[in-house]
Order: sequence, then C-alpha cells, then structure tokens
Amino acid sequence: MPEIMTRILDKVNSPDDLKKLSVNELQPLADEMRELIIKKVNTTGGHFGPNLGMVEATIALHYVFNSPVDKIVFDVSHQCYPHKILTGRKEGFTNPDSYHKYTGYTAPEETDHDLFKVGHTSTSISLATGLAKGRDLLGGKENVIAIIGDGSLTGGEALEGLNNAAVLGSNIIIIVNDNDMSIAENQGGICNMLTELRENNGEVKNNFFKALGFEYHYIADGHNIENMIETFSKVKDTDHPVLIHMYTQKGKGFKPAETDKEPFHWILPNTLDHLNDEPQAQSESYESITKDYLLKKVNEGEPIVAINAATPGVFGWNKEFRTKMGSHYVDTGIAEQQAVAMASGIAKRGGKAVLGIMSSFVQRTYDQLSQDLALNNNPATLLVFWGGISNADATHLCTFDIPLISNIPNIVYLAPTCKEEYIRMLDWSVNQKEHSVAIRVPFAISYSGNEDKTDYSILNKYQMVEQGEKVAIVALGSFFDKGKEVKALLKEKLGINATLINPRFITGVDKEMLENLKSNHSVVITLEDGELDGGFGEKITRFYGNSSMKVLNYGSFKEFTDRTPMEELNEKYHLTPELITEDIKNII
Amino acid sequence: MPEIMTRILDKVNSPDDLKKLSVNELQPLADEMRELIIKKVNTTGGHFGPNLGMVEATIALHYVFNSPVDKIVFDVSHQCYPHKILTGRKEGFTNPDSYHKYTGYTAPEETDHDLFKVGHTSTSISLATGLAKGRDLLGGKENVIAIIGDGSLTGGEALEGLNNAAVLGSNIIIIVNDNDMSIAENQGGICNMLTELRENNGEVKNNFFKALGFEYHYIADGHNIENMIETFSKVKDTDHPVLIHMYTQKGKGFKPAETDKEPFHWILPNTLDHLNDEPQAQSESYESITKDYLLKKVNEGEPIVAINAATPGVFGWNKEFRTKMGSHYVDTGIAEQQAVAMASGIAKRGGKAVLGIMSSFVQRTYDQLSQDLALNNNPATLLVFWGGISNADATHLCTFDIPLISNIPNIVYLAPTCKEEYIRMLDWSVNQKEHSVAIRVPFAISYSGNEDKTDYSILNKYQMVEQGEKVAIVALGSFFDKGKEVKALLKEKLGINATLINPRFITGVDKEMLENLKSNHSVVITLEDGELDGGFGEKITRFYGNSSMKVLNYGSFKEFTDRTPMEELNEKYHLTPELITEDIKNII
Repeated sequence: MPEIMTRILDKVNSPDDLKKLSVNELQPLADEMRELIIKKVNTTGGHFGPNLGMVEATIALHYVFNSPVDKIVFDVSHQCYPHKILTGRKEGFTNPDSYHKYTGYTAPEETDHDLFKVGHTSTSISLATGLAKGRDLLGGKENVIAIIGDGSLTGGEALEGLNNAAVLGSNIIIIVNDNDMSIAENQGGICNMLTELRENNGEVKNNFFKALGFEYHYIADGHNIENMIETFSKVKDTDHPVLIHMYTQKGKGFKPAETDKEPFHWILPNTLDHLNDEPQAQSESYESITKDYLLKKVNEGEPIVAINAATPGVFGWNKEFRTKMGSHYVDTGIAEQQAVAMASGIAKRGGKAVLGIMSSFVQRTYDQLSQDLALNNNPATLLVFWGGISNADATHLCTFDIPLISNIPNIVYLAPTCKEEYIRMLDWSVNQKEHSVAIRVPFAISYSGNEDKTDYSILNKYQMVEQGEKVAIVALGSFFDKGKEVKALLKEKLGINATLINPRFITGVDKEMLENLKSNHSVVITLEDGELDGGFGEKITRFYGNSSMKVLNYGSFKEFTDRTPMEELNEKYHLTPELITEDIKNII
Repeated sequence: MPEIMTRILDKVNSPDDLKKLSVNELQPLADEMRELIIKKVNTTGGHFGPNLGMVEATIALHYVFNSPVDKIVFDVSHQCYPHKILTGRKEGFTNPDSYHKYTGYTAPEETDHDLFKVGHTSTSISLATGLAKGRDLLGGKENVIAIIGDGSLTGGEALEGLNNAAVLGSNIIIIVNDNDMSIAENQGGICNMLTELRENNGEVKNNFFKALGFEYHYIADGHNIENMIETFSKVKDTDHPVLIHMYTQKGKGFKPAETDKEPFHWILPNTLDHLNDEPQAQSESYESITKDYLLKKVNEGEPIVAINAATPGVFGWNKEFRTKMGSHYVDTGIAEQQAVAMASGIAKRGGKAVLGIMSSFVQRTYDQLSQDLALNNNPATLLVFWGGISNADATHLCTFDIPLISNIPNIVYLAPTCKEEYIRMLDWSVNQKEHSVAIRVPFAISYSGNEDKTDYSILNKYQMVEQGEKVAIVALGSFFDKGKEVKALLKEKLGINATLINPRFITGVDKEMLENLKSNHSVVITLEDGELDGGFGEKITRFYGNSSMKVLNYGSFKEFTDRTPMEELNEKYHLTPELITEDIKNII
C-alpha cells in the first residue's frame, strides 16, 4: 500500500490539539485515522473490526472530555487504537518502523491516558467504580468514563459492575458501545434487550438500564461525531450515574468487515491482500479432529452439547460447524462461569457436555470448576486450548491453567501428546460417568503412529515410553517431543540411555512408577509447557522429597511476560535440550 | 425445649404424601416444620433466617411440582431445610440424635431430590439452564426450577445465568426469593429495582426481568401457600422462561429474627437461649485489631476504603463499624469480582483499598486478582480470613487460597504469625505503592511480645527465629506455633536442636537463607495450614531439587473433606508434632 498522507492528524499530538480543531475537521480526521488503522493492522495483525467501529466515538470522547484528568477506561481494550493515535502514540500507526512499538491493548506504562493494562473482557465498569470511589474520597472532580461493548456486557463482572455503578451516588458515565456483535454473534436476553432498544431508537416499555437506576441516553449513530459531542457534553460533569447506549458499526469503513464481521474481529497479517483468494484446504489439526468427533457423535444420536463462551474461533467452531451442530451447540456469550455451570447441569441430566475454553480464560471460572463441577463430580469435558508458553501479550498468557485446574480436587486433567491419545482421551471422557475431566489440547498436531488403547479410567498411570537408567525424563503433553530431544542429546553428549515417560495425567502422581525409578536413576527431570509454580513438576519433586533422588523442573517462571520472544524465554527458562543437558551434567 | 409434637408431618415422608393433604392442612404443617427448624438449628447451629423464610414456599413447590422428576435447584442451599424435611429426611429434624445426620446444604448423596452439592451463592440459575438443556436434548418433559435469593442475584454467575435462561426457548422457572436482605443489607441497582417492584405490587414502568425477556409474575406474600400454589400451577409445564418474584420474610415466625435479620442469618448453638443476656465484652482478635486500625486511619484522614462482598460478619464488620466508617465502607453485594476490580481502581486513583474476603470465596475472583489487580500492580490490600484446615462442610473449605493466590505473579502474599507481625504487615501494605498485597489473617490470635520492625518492602526475606542444625522447620503463618512444638519434640525425642524459620512471605523463596541451610542441615520440613498441592512447601522442595537436602511437606491433601473431624485430619495428614517427629526420625 502507498504511504498514507495525513493532513489533519499532523496537527494532533494530544487531546489538547484535538480540541483546537473545528468540528468540521473531525470527520476528515476520522477518515485519516481509519486508513492508518487498516494499513497498520493489515501489516502486523491485530484487532480490526472493533477499532474501526470506535474511530468517531473516540474522537468525540477526547473532544469533550479532558483526558488524562478525566479517566476513560476501555473494556478489554480491543478498541483502543483510535485512542492510542490521539494520545501521543500516532507514530505507532504512521511509521511502519514503529508498528510494534506499542501494545495492542491499553498500557499505563505507555501513557497516563491509559489507566489499566487490560485484555480480558467485562472489567471496565468495575474498574471505573473504583476510580470514581477513589476520586470521591480524595475530593476529585473529574469524569470517570467506562466504555464497554455489548458482547462484554454479558460477563458476570460487568453485570456486578452495573449493579454497583448504579448506586455510586456520584459521577460515572458508562458508554455501551453496541455493535450488535460479540466476537461471534451475540447471545442472550441482554442482546435481545439491546436489539429492542436499537429498533425503537432507545424508547421501549421496559428499559433494562433505567430499571437499574441509570439515566439513559441513546445515540442512534455512533459515527456521527457532532451528535456524540452533543450527548457527551450534556452528561459531562454529571453528579450521578449515566449510561449512554451507542450504536456503532463493527468494521466501519471497510466493506468486507462491515458485511462479515466475525472473521474481521482480529486478523492475521496481510489478510486484506488475500480476500479474494480461494480458501485453502485446511490440514488436520486438533481443532478439525475435535469438530469431526463432535459432529460424528451428534449424527450417531448422542446428546452431545458443544459449549463455549463467545470464542468459537479459538476452536475452529466456525459458522458451518455451528449450523451443523444446531441445538447441540451453545454459545453462552462472554460468560465462562455460566458455561462451566451449564456444562455441569447438562452432565447431571445425562447430556454429554464438551466445553471449549482458551487457557487464558480458564481463570475466569475457578469457583465454578471447583464448586459447580468438581465437587459434584459431574462428567463434563473441558477442552483447554492454547495452553503453553508463548510470546503472547501479558494479558493473554496461557501458562496458568495447570496450576489452576490441577490443584482442584476431583478433576482429571489429561495431557495428550499426539492425535491418537487425544482421540482416545476425548472419547473416554465423553462416555464415562465418574469424573469431571479436562484435556489440555496441544497447539500443534503430532502423531505417534500407534493406536492408543489405554483405559483412562485407571487414573494416574503414566506411560513408560522407554526404560533406561540414571536419568528419567517426565515430559508432559506438548513438551513430550522436547523430552525426546533431551533423551537423544543425553545419549549423544553424555552417553546416558535415559528413561522417557509420558505422564498423560497432569493431576496425579504415578507413585508406583516413580518409586521404581529409584532403583537405577539418580536424576528425574520434569518438562511442562506452563508455569512451574503450583504446576505438575513440583508434585513429582514433592514425591521424591524424602529420598535422595534429584529432581529438576522445567517450565515457565511465575511472571507476566509481555510479547517476549520465544528464544529469550527458552534461554531464560532453560527450555532447550542443550541447556537441560548441561544442567543434568552439572548435578550428575 | 419440650419435644415437638408433629401431627400432620407424621403423615408426610415424601412429596407424594404431601400432595395427599388438603390445602387447609398445609399452613398447620408449615407451623410444625417451623418449630422443628427453630429447635434443631438452635441445637446444632446453622442457617436460621433463610430457612424460616422458605417454609411455606417450599411446601407450595412440592405440592405443585413433581420432584425428583421435576428438578428444583436451591441457590447456595441456605434455605433447603424445609425441602429436606419434605423429601424423606425429617428424621434429621424430629430426632435430636439424628440432628447431624444430614448436611446443612443440598447433597445428592442423600437423595435424588437434591441435584447438586451447593454452598457458594449465585449458581442455581446457571446449573438449571444445564439441566434444562440436557432435558431438551434427551426429550424430557420435566419442569426445571431454580430458586435464588435477592442477595445471590447480584453475583456475576447468577446474572450470566439470567441472560442465558432468558433465551433458552423452553421450560425454566426461576423463583426469586426476595426477602429484602442478603446476609447483611442488600446493595445496588438490582436491590433498588426489586424494592420498587415490591412497593408497586410488581407493576412498574421499567421491569428488569421483562426487559430480559422473561414472563414475570409477582407473589406479594410468599407465606400465603394457597396463592403460591395458584401461581406455581399456572406456570407449571410452561414452554418458555418464566420468572416468579416472590416476597418472603427472612426469619419468618421468630420475632427477633424478623426484626433484626442479620444476626439470625446463621446462628451458633443455643443462641436463642441467650437472647436477653448482656453482650459479653469481646476479647481482642484479628477482627477487632483490623477494625481498630481502619477506623484510626479514617480518623486520621486517610482515604481508606474497607470493601467486602456481602459477608461483613466474617470480619466482625458489624453495624457499628459500618456506620463509623461511613463512605469509607463499601459492600459490593455478593460480587467478589466487582470487589477486587473496585479495589484495584481505588488504589489506582490513590485511595487505600482494604478488601476483606473469606478464604473459600477467594476462588470466586481469580481472574480479577490476576488481570485487574496483579497485572497492574495496583497497591490494594486483600485480607484473607479463615484460611486453614478445618472440619468445615465440603462447600466451605478454606484450604485452597494459597495455591490460588501464590501462583499468580506479582501479588505479595504474607502470612503473619502473631498480632505484632499482622499490624506491621497491614500498615506496610496500606502505605506502600508498589505491590498488590494479600495477608492471610490467622483465625486465632497469638502474640510474640516483641514489636515487629521488619521492612516488608524487602520481599521474600524469611525470619530466622532460631538457628540450629540437622533439621530446619519452615513453619508458615498459623502453623508457626506447630513448628515450635515440633522443634521442642525433636529436642526431647531425638536430641536435635532444630532450626526454626518463620517465612512470613508465602509468595517467594528466600534463596539465600535456604542455601545457607545446606551447610549443616540434611532435612527441611515445611508446615502450612492448607493444601499441599500447588502450595507453599512445594516451592521449597523445588528449590532443593538439585541438592541432597531431604524435604518433607506438611499440609492438607488435595481433596474435598466434608465435616471431617480435625483429629482425623491431623492423623491423616500427619499434622501432629508426634507424627512429624516420627517421619523425621525415619529419614534422618
């Protein structure tokens, strides 16, 4: 694409500069910003539709309010690019060399205009109530504004926030950015309620927000900057809770994204250059295997329900799959607590609930995993996707699911290392009636070449892959291949014929096998693709605490890394076969 | 009290028997049941007000619906005693010898009339949506009924459940048991909305439930059995979501509980026999110390906010305290996610947020601890009460907070062993600006006799209490005194002058101190008052994994114990000084 000429944006390095523009210059400014966002996101990948939808509204916000004195909290911050452009960070959008300078989320370390590091949804209202309460105690007078999408509004924290914001008794302005979409289609009574409001220009018989006690305003066109300025000015400095319901178009200004919103929520680099390409045949993946399995079972008449909380794309549960599943598919909206409890209820009633969830979002539903599910031993199946160490943003790390799930009693958490095991585990889990089961689905597919005939109802039985001596490698799930590499290098460098174990069970220790290792091993190493603290390896180490066995645990440290390159992490955590072999050499 | 004569209840051993009674016999039956509940709860302790409020409604429910084919899910099950009496378990109320036969919560192992083991709030609607979805897939026709209190309705999971139930497209009946109280006073926009409905006999301009899409019915008197039977019969076998809003009186039928609801939510044994006693002077406790500290700071003009999620009684935050705190006190309702996010927002704005939470409920807000708080390093203080191994019901175990909190990056989790340390830690936490801090407040008070002058901003520095040799005892928080006992017994039995360490920091390892132990120790033991898996001790064990140090970890196992006597747990977990000494003897 050619370099984008900005003329009006040239004059804007801060919200103060913005306020000096005439109202007539604002839409042309929006057009410039939109072009920048399209080009930048198509180069780096990132959130596309949500940002395009918020260009005009963000201009109006900064035109009326006085950030950073006035505090604007963006929910999930999928829509913060226009805000970044207007608050001193336009370089990250105008200069391709700086495209990676700023995170894709709000980040207080970048500027005072960002209040919180945010990447999980449904938090903005609650966080804003805190800012408002702090302000009131300290005698401040600023406006506190929470932006939240209609999708995010269905999350429990957001609803708890609404309940509290309504009685704050002072200034708080909640802006519901209603684009009639979550990542996929919206779900639930709240969605229908918003639709009714939109269809009736904000005038309905039973107004949900008014029922809660909010002063309610409706903005029919969230791209009409002048109208928004008028409404925002009206509520600025309010002394009571106000809710503005604003209709915007997700993907605004880029036709394909306006028409087909879901695939443009977040895009990969260069997506826009290949819109007319023939779709490529997808190679086999854990996603495709899962879909095939679920559809097969449904066709066989099984009472399967595939459940997820508004992120079907993570599992490849695309429109075609959803349509085929029909009533066997449930999207709870952004509501992981509901998803887990519902799965438990379905299992209790004899249905076969299979819940897909991304590792980073498991932590949104700990109490439900523990109380609604595990305490009741209801046989639902949780498929945890994307678990593992990565170069992800600090808000989307997927390293914490093992410490979380594996320390809850009763849950059987399984770690397949290949397609054959995954199929067997999934089928076992769906058909058994004894346990709540979670399966940590690896990211990249792998094959053992041998059908797995394991009976997983015999819990905590590890697989002895190769019996050796001196050193035993316990390599969990997606790190099993790393275990094989370590074994090979130990042979090559130290002449050690190491034992290789595939534990398969994250949630239990195979005491018999570990005990047997004592006779001809002096070192055990554990490899896990996640946080060490509270994880799998520590339990092995505890088992050997009363013996002379030395144990080294490999995994990630307890820390929020932030887009840290994998090479750096592998070096820091000693996750390469070379570094591990070196460590073993040092203690043997 | 004299033996209670039951005449009508004599005929009722099941809901089928109940249906044979004439409507005229039902109120006398309610009176008999109420008397039984009062006597039983006054003997054993337990939930009092909630159960008295649901006697008539439960009779009407079982008169109309066909349990266990029709499925009734009780939220938090604080109100399930009348249900227990009517579903084959009246012996637990008529016969004092059987008073402890049944749990205080719904329990599927007792009867098919109980669907879930439940003791945390706000789950019934979500669980019911699962039962309904399972029914629909399996071709069932039964009614699914979720009972939920007005207090529980403010929890995120309940609201996610409402959003989903509204679009279920088939039979689900939600009964909001509105008694105008949570455990303490209700809070928030939902509370005000319910009040408006009550004051207008269910007829208001903006009906919250209708806005979500429910067919709405109002029952003005939830003690008028005939009226309830009429309404329940009307909605029975509905083919779409229905919500019944029913006004009941908490504590109904026992005057002091009707008048002063909060202290009668849950009572200790023999409470009713001492209603007119002079209140006893309270001895010093961590609760009283906390209150004194907070009030002092408020009086000094500090922007303190004491926050909690609807359980002020856990921390002794009684009406007097709440009144004195004024705007410095926030009850978010049953909304732990909101409480943590709000605390983070207050801290961000410069306020000093101190959040009280019971250990068992920390797990209702993992994602907020991680994302809203820890990732942002906002300096709020979390006081975790009641953490520790106990004979509690399976639904209220307090053994999981260490694995949960201590594996989240950034949070500093402290374990005071005495008043002096607690005061110092609390004051440090409230005044520092660097860290999100949690403090595990012990249950029973203890004194060291020495002012603590530790600078807790130097993280992860353990206290060397007594330098010895051979064996080192790392005794955490409320198990510090146990560590002292072990030390004494090691001296007495084995002649070992053991080292005693008070780690103070749950969330970090004092590598220097642990390294130094290697020179003249061969065994380290860790003691923690909570779950071993993912806990504190495993991290010490991991530290020593590459050395010849033997490490024994003491704490509870990963399991849901259920009212298990402490003696049994101490034996099983080897938590007595004698058993620990024996273990050490065996490996030394």
